Amino acid sequence: MREYVHLNYDEMPKSWYNVLPDLPFKLDPPLDPETQKPMTPEKLLKIFPGPLLEQEANDVDRFIDMPEEILKEYAVYRPTPLIRAKFLEEFLETPVKIYYKYEGVSPTGSHKTNTALAQAYFNKISGTEILYTETGAGQWGSALSYAGVKYGLRVNVYMVRVSYLQKPARKNLINLFEGNVTPSPSRNTKVGRKYPEDHPGSLGIAISEAMEEVFDKDNAKYALGSVLNHVLLHQTVIGLEIKKQLEKLELKPDIIIGCHGGGSNFGGTILPFIPEKLSGENLRFIACEPESCPTLTKGEYRYDFGDTAGFTPMLKMYTLGKDFIPPSIHAGGLRYHGAAPIISALLKNNLIEAQTFSQDETFKAAKLFSKIEGIIPAPESAHAIAGAIREALNAKKEGKGKVIVFTLSGHGLFDLNAYV
Amino acid sequence: MREYVHLNYDEMPKSWYNVLPDLPFKLDPPLDPETQKPMTPEKLLKIFPGPLLEQEANDVDRFIDMPEEILKEYAVYRPTPLIRAKFLEEFLETPVKIYYKYEGVSPTGSHKTNTALAQAYFNKISGTEILYTETGAGQWGSALSYAGVKYGLRVNVYMVRVSYLQKPARKNLINLFEGNVTPSPSRNTKVGRKYPEDHPGSLGIAISEAMEEVFDKDNAKYALGSVLNHVLLHQTVIGLEIKKQLEKLELKPDIIIGCHGGGSNFGGTILPFIPEKLSGENLRFIACEPESCPTLTKGEYRYDFGDTAGFTPMLKMYTLGKDFIPPSIHAGGLRYHGAAPIISALLKNNLIEAQTFSQDETFKAAKLFSKIEGIIPAPESAHAIAGAIREALNAKKEGKGKVIVFTLSGHGLFDLNAYV
Repeated sequence: MREYVHLNYDEMPKSWYNVLPDLPFKLDPPLDPETQKPMTPEKLLKIFPGPLLEQEANDVDRFIDMPEEILKEYAVYRPTPLIRAKFLEEFLETPVKIYYKYEGVSPTGSHKTNTALAQAYFNKISGTEILYTETGAGQWGSALSYAGVKYGLRVNVYMVRVSYLQKPARKNLINLFEGNVTPSPSRNTKVGRKYPEDHPGSLGIAISEAMEEVFDKDNAKYALGSVLNHVLLHQTVIGLEIKKQLEKLELKPDIIIGCHGGGSNFGGTILPFIPEKLSGENLRFIACEPESCPTLTKGEYRYDFGDTAGFTPMLKMYTLGKDFIPPSIHAGGLRYHGAAPIISALLKNNLIEAQTFSQDETFKAAKLFSKIEGIIPAPESAHAIAGAIREALNAKKEGKGKVIVFTLSGHGLFDLNAYV
Repeated sequence: MREYVHLNYDEMPKSWYNVLPDLPFKLDPPLDPETQKPMTPEKLLKIFPGPLLEQEANDVDRFIDMPEEILKEYAVYRPTPLIRAKFLEEFLETPVKIYYKYEGVSPTGSHKTNTALAQAYFNKISGTEILYTETGAGQWGSALSYAGVKYGLRVNVYMVRVSYLQKPARKNLINLFEGNVTPSPSRNTKVGRKYPEDHPGSLGIAISEAMEEVFDKDNAKYALGSVLNHVLLHQTVIGLEIKKQLEKLELKPDIIIGCHGGGSNFGGTILPFIPEKLSGENLRFIACEPESCPTLTKGEYRYDFGDTAGFTPMLKMYTLGKDFIPPSIHAGGLRYHGAAPIISALLKNNLIEAQTFSQDETFKAAKLFSKIEGIIPAPESAHAIAGAIREALNAKKEGKGKVIVFTLSGHGLFDLNAYV
């Protein structure tokens, strides 16, 4: 039988966990692309609202309260279930216990809603009227559109063209939640017009287009779905819930696994467990990324831009280079050249590991999971399943009864053409 | 906040509820289309396996045990949650409490899995190797394919052409679960070849095609996703769970609502409450059907065929006539000319009510629900939401604090093109 670990609403975390004060090192600051010096607050305020910038730089408060207005919207789909993958365990004949945190129950089907609601809310109270953003596979664009409807903001989404063409349902989903969506590169922006009309696009280009629009307008701000500290902060609701759910089971995790694109799902999952790791507990964190976009495993650790045009502040991170155009793999949400500065620094300091997975290994895991666990995973999330299977089989060889937890960041119901 | 009413696995019903012994009337028997006399068991055994025929005719046992092998598969997604529609209540400013039973958590996204697993299992133990079926919107075809994978049966699906074209994701879903899918009318069968190649199709034609294939083969049987007694029997797991969930809340329902196509979701929801109704409790059951396919509200109560070619046994039911070709509405799962004999008899005896809903009223309800409850309903299920809203507003006018329960039979993530 399937074992759910449910939390009640009153057990839901009421604050996000901010890892910065706990880190044994300081993060290098974002640099101004024009001066190569640390960004001034004035310049950043053109892009992001004050409350989010405060969260971005806050290295003092370990917990940051969630406003009532966000808690109310989280309650539409949170707490999300932790589920024991018993059918998978039986199939693998492994002595490990495997649990997955399922974020696909959110209104747009992925974990992205967790930060979308927070970003829309803090923009709204700061006077923003329009949000511009980019989206790869469409999870982020649909989540931000949903959040825009909730708090009364207009949302404009630049969607990587290859995903726009592959995933018409995600475009429909953005429209259902009253967002506007434009395939990128587009003719709307100077950046976009530099590329041929049928260019497949990349997250880097789409970010540049969204940023260009924001620079042109007074009432508009930019919202990013991954990479930044405040995005990972909002996603810690995932790991904080996992912690409570494991406590209910009186279990301690040995390995925690997440897929990794820009780092929001992975960071949200593992950051709340960093204090245990730093206190010496034997705990492994594994970031699973596609072989074809191996940011953490093959990238360089250096300052780089977040976008292709070089509009964004420069971040110290693992990067494949801002001009890297990844192949059109099915896991569109993992096609990003950079990695979150927090995740990059954790990797540099050997506090986390990264592994790569081929598209073949990933889809085998996804299909197996669909058939035996009855949930069709997003291609992105399937990297975490493949990671869990790899570690479960390793533990089987060693004959060790470990506890493996992974986050299933979203469902794959809009990605079925990738499956067949 | 959203209030979930969860059941544990050990609280899951272990038997289906068979309404036949409790009915204050006898159902008229299925007739042989050739002789117009009651069907002989031999003829029926060509179509359905023995255990399902026994269930079909059983008017003695009020409860029928679920085999362990089915319970194990139900546990992949059951018990399903009962959820309080608090955001909807607040929006409507109504004194009623509204709860919905959410069947969209099943592996293929609708309640159809409940009977698909049962039918595949009983076919498997009876020696069936191939199952043929029809599907309208694709919920049933995908559910049966999933069940086929579970018990090792090949599944061939005739899919109403208009849905096949409108809903490519559902075709992909059938393929993911190793089912074969053919748009109907097809060139494979004598029946199909009578229609032009671009005919939009209907459930009645698709059933005829599937039946023709079964008559030709020794190792094949036919599986129907609605209408028949044994299908409604398997779906009673829905209503039995609702009962337990309401007991946990110490609530008694005043109105129970379901959408109605052939009657499986509606029957599964309300039948377990029939004993209360018969014992004199003030309890209303409302079947919600589309204006454009008004089987219960405008049909005649008489013997008719289940399919267009006249292969199936004749059933006493409300019908729009076997040759009725409903318009290509978005709620493809509700485009059927007939209604389950059990539901038809209940309506004839004034134990249930039926109401019609325009496509406009239905989609307004669906969009509202998506935005405020955070779940995108199937167009079929949206008829039940529209019904609940109608009754909630009625109760508001009367100032009455009723308890309304409806079944949200599936999600609409494969139907987004209908929304925009």
